[in-house]
Parts: sequence; C-alpha cells; structure tokens
Amino acid sequence: MTDASLAIEEGNFHSSARQQKHRHDLIDAWLQLSGRAWSCILEVGCGQGDQTASLAKRFAQSKITAIDPASPEYGSPTTLGQSQAALKATPWGQNITFEQMDAVSFAARSKSGKAEKQDIAVLSHCIWYFPSPQILTDTFQALKSTGTRHLALAEWDISTGATSASVHLHSVLLQALPAALRDTEANIRCPLTPNAIREAACKAGWKVRGEMTLKSPDLEDAQWEIYAAKAAIAKMQKAHLKNEDQIALHAHEAALQAAISHWEASRRSTDSLAPCLDVWVSVFE
Amino acid sequence: MTDASLAIEEGNFHSSARQQKHRHDLIDAWLQLSGRAWSCILEVGCGQGDQTASLAKRFAQSKITAIDPASPEYGSPTTLGQSQAALKATPWGQNITFEQMDAVSFAARSKSGKAEKQDIAVLSHCIWYFPSPQILTDTFQALKSTGTRHLALAEWDISTGATSASVHLHSVLLQALPAALRDTEANIRCPLTPNAIREAACKAGWKVRGEMTLKSPDLEDAQWEIYAAKAAIAKMQKAHLKNEDQIALHAHEAALQAAISHWEASRRSTDSLAPCLDVWVSVFE
Repeated sequence: MTDASLAIEEGNFHSSARQQKHRHDLIDAWLQLSGRAWSCILEVGCGQGDQTASLAKRFAQSKITAIDPASPEYGSPTTLGQSQAALKATPWGQNITFEQMDAVSFAARSKSGKAEKQDIAVLSHCIWYFPSPQILTDTFQALKSTGTRHLALAEWDISTGATSASVHLHSVLLQALPAALRDTEANIRCPLTPNAIREAACKAGWKVRGEMTLKSPDLEDAQWEIYAAKAAIAKMQKAHLKNEDQIALHAHEAALQAAISHWEASRRSTDSLAPCLDVWVSVFE
Repeated sequence: MTDASLAIEEGNFHSSARQQKHRHDLIDAWLQLSGRAWSCILEVGCGQGDQTASLAKRFAQSKITAIDPASPEYGSPTTLGQSQAALKATPWGQNITFEQMDAVSFAARSKSGKAEKQDIAVLSHCIWYFPSPQILTDTFQALKSTGTRHLALAEWDISTGATSASVHLHSVLLQALPAALRDTEANIRCPLTPNAIREAACKAGWKVRGEMTLKSPDLEDAQWEIYAAKAAIAKMQKAHLKNEDQIALHAHEAALQAAISHWEASRRSTDSLAPCLDVWVSVFE
C-alpha cells in the first residue's frame, strides 16, 4: 500500500500519509511494550481522530471509545465533528464511538456501571494540549480508579531538540512562556517532559512497564508549531504585557527566529519540513 | 607577550588571559569602526574593570572615567572595590578615575560643568545586566545630551546560538523567564538583541557608524551563565511560583539540561568550555 492510499483509505483526509504512518508506528511500539493486543480501547484526547483511525484499522475486532472534551465545531481546516463523521463512515468506523467528554467524567460513568472496563487507555500526542498538569494528574488517577489495565502514552520530548530539532524546540519554548500559557485558548498549555509525565502517572498508582524513543523527524508537527508560536507572538504583542513578559518574549522570539533562519539556510529544498523532536513512547500498568 | 603575562601585567587577577585578549579585540573593533582614537573616555558599567584595564593600557595618554552604580562591596571572588584598587595600583592606573555612579547622574554633572565632555562612551558586555530596558534608553539619551561624540557597544547576540552555542543560549533564555527577571538581584535582567539595542540608541538620537560581529567562542562567559542559570533555577524553585511560571521553568530547565548534556557528550575534554555566543560590536555617532 502506498502512503497516499493509506491516507485516503483511512478516510481521514486532513491527515497526511506521514502522520498516518507515525500513528501506526506508535501502535507497534505500544504492542511491543505491552506484550498484548486489546479488545476494549479508550482513547483520551482523540481530537480529529488521527490515532483513532489507525487503532480502528489495526484492531478491527476491538471496541474503541474515543473521547475529547473539545466542541465538535473546534478545529481547522476540518472540525472535530467533520473528521469524526468522515471516520465513522469508513468500513471500520462502526467499531468507534466518539464522545465529547473528558477522562474524569468517563471514569465516573464507568464506575457507576454505565461504561465497560477498558483494556487500555491511549493518550497520543494530546498531553501538551491539556489545560494544566493538574488535569493530567486527575486523568491518570481517574483511569487507574476504573481498573484500566494499561496506559499507553506518546508525547514529544523537549530534551531531544538540542541538535537538529531546534526549530520545534524553540517553537515549544516560546509557547511555554507564562504570558502565552495564560491564554486559555493557547495551543500548547502543558509542555511536560517524559520525567514529569512519568512522575505524574506513578503518583496516580501506575507502574512503568516499558519505554522507548521513536524518531519521526519528518512529520509536519514542527511546522505546525512554528505557526502556533507565531500566532502566540502576535497575540502577546497585542496584549498589555508586563515589562518582564515583554523582555522574555523579545529574547525568545529572537531565539526562535534564529533557529528558523538557521534551518532555512541548511535545508535541502524550500519544501523541506523543519525536523521534529523525538517521541517518548511508554506503557504503564 | 604571553597570555599569562598579559593577565598579570594588567593587574586584574580575576580576569583570564582569554578575557583580556577579548577586551583588546573589542578595542580594535571600535577603533576600526570609529576611525579614530580617543583622549577622553567614559566607560559605563565598568564592573570589576576588565574593559577598563585594556582601555587604560591601550590609551596611556587618555583620561578614563569608569563608572558603575554597583557597591564597591559587590562581586566575587574579588569585589569591585578590590579589583578597582588593584588596577589603580598599576602603572596605567593613574589615568583611571573610578566612580560609583550611573550614566544619567554622570551626564547631569557633566551638563552642570563639573565633568569633562567625553570623546566616547563605552558599554562593554554590561547592557544585559542593566536593571531594565528603560534605564538603557535613559542612559543613551543622557550620553547624547552631553555631546559625547561616539558610543561604543559590545554585547552577546542571542540569535547566534542556534548552532554550537546552545548552552550559552539556553542559559540566557532561562534567565530571561519572567519569574527570573522579577528577581531584582538576578544576573541577566535586560537580555536585548542587537536590533533592540540599536533601536533604543537611534531613538535617543544616535546614528549607526558601523557594526560587526566578533567570534570569541572560547571565553568563560557561557560557563558562568550556566552557574547563573542554575542559581536562578534554585531561587525560582524555592519561591512560590504561579502555575504558568512553574510550567515555563520546567520546560526551560529541560531544554538547558539537554543542551548541557549534548555539549558534554561532544566536547573534547572535561576542561573544555561551553562555546559562547557571538559578540555584536557597534559604534554610534
């Protein structure tokens, strides 16, 4: 199967073949780390359904519940509602149930006997978009409290940006400025490291079963984060920032612009994408 | 003259031969950019006197006034007072007058006829340690108002850290976090780019005469900024930070630690110094 047919076949038209392949690579990693397949899968923070599509295709006999607290109207160029509807219309869409809900609410419903016990809860590239670290902690605790067997995580690793992924890194650091984080509509709001995420999971009673690093430098994410960082700069410049926030923005904007210029000068063609950070993949039990 | 004898000869014992050479390189750059030598030199933010020593040696017939608002008791391992006294005791010390004063006060005294008109005002690696960008602007205006002929600047350039100087860069970016900048005893408090410094000077009526970039990667400054960044981290961790400041600190600390680890893995020996940012050198008139 070519990359292009993979993207079309999965019915998730906003997502590139590269993104789809990455989501399949994540499943391979989680399978390796967990040592088993799953019949009842909960995906937390499913968004447009990139990971959901890959899960549904790989586990055609499984029941997949994909939840996200965002409104069906949210998202661009296609909304969450449109993407999820397109995915539901594919042959494997019948195994997916989308719900607008967070994990804490889902756990409450599960404990009241109104939802099935899950083999695994998947959080794939959604942690950085959580409203706060506290809500991540609450989520880990809620998932543990319902007796979910495994927790499968995938998130970018800030510490891998020191070399080639400096554009991705500085786009994230700029969005990690307090003045950007205070914007409740910001893109990245919880840019935690693997260490901090692991610590939060362990505090909630989860134990590490396995971890690995996945290199996927040629995804579009670094490019998207440049746009998100530039949008954050524009918003901060319009806001009435305190002196220290202005100084911080000035220094970080210069560092980001320099990283972009350096990458532009070294890239092979103008179509090249800025390299992405490595991905930390883990399974807890 | 060997590097070692240069350091000892200048009587400025805390300053390494590399630092002294860099200060002489800066003088060469300013001479080239200004096209002339100076008989009456004002050094603003002289600190321990590293640049003062080099100026006094190179311009033995000139009168040098070196000012700094910091207390003579400030500084480690030697205080400003100790360093300045040691420099005064050298053969060229008789041409130097040290005063505890800022440029705005000096300009006021100059305009009242109690201080000589200066050929040039030198700000060498001191701008980032100004209490705020506003005080830099006030300084540029004050120096212009007294009819000072030239303004000679030297400061690190954040935008040159994208490649080899990532340790220096991330040490600076961490100190440029709002929670660090709010500490009135912080090391770096005004980490402006060349663009912002140039803009402030031009707004104060100065015109660019010339600019250049000086590469001095093997100075100790990046190493010093690692210590300053780690001290800032320790102080922030003890403070009661808001959530957004904690998240920002977490992300920036991870990026700094990764830059340090990456540099440590690639350095030639454990004695190697972390490479420094390039230096922006300019003369205004």
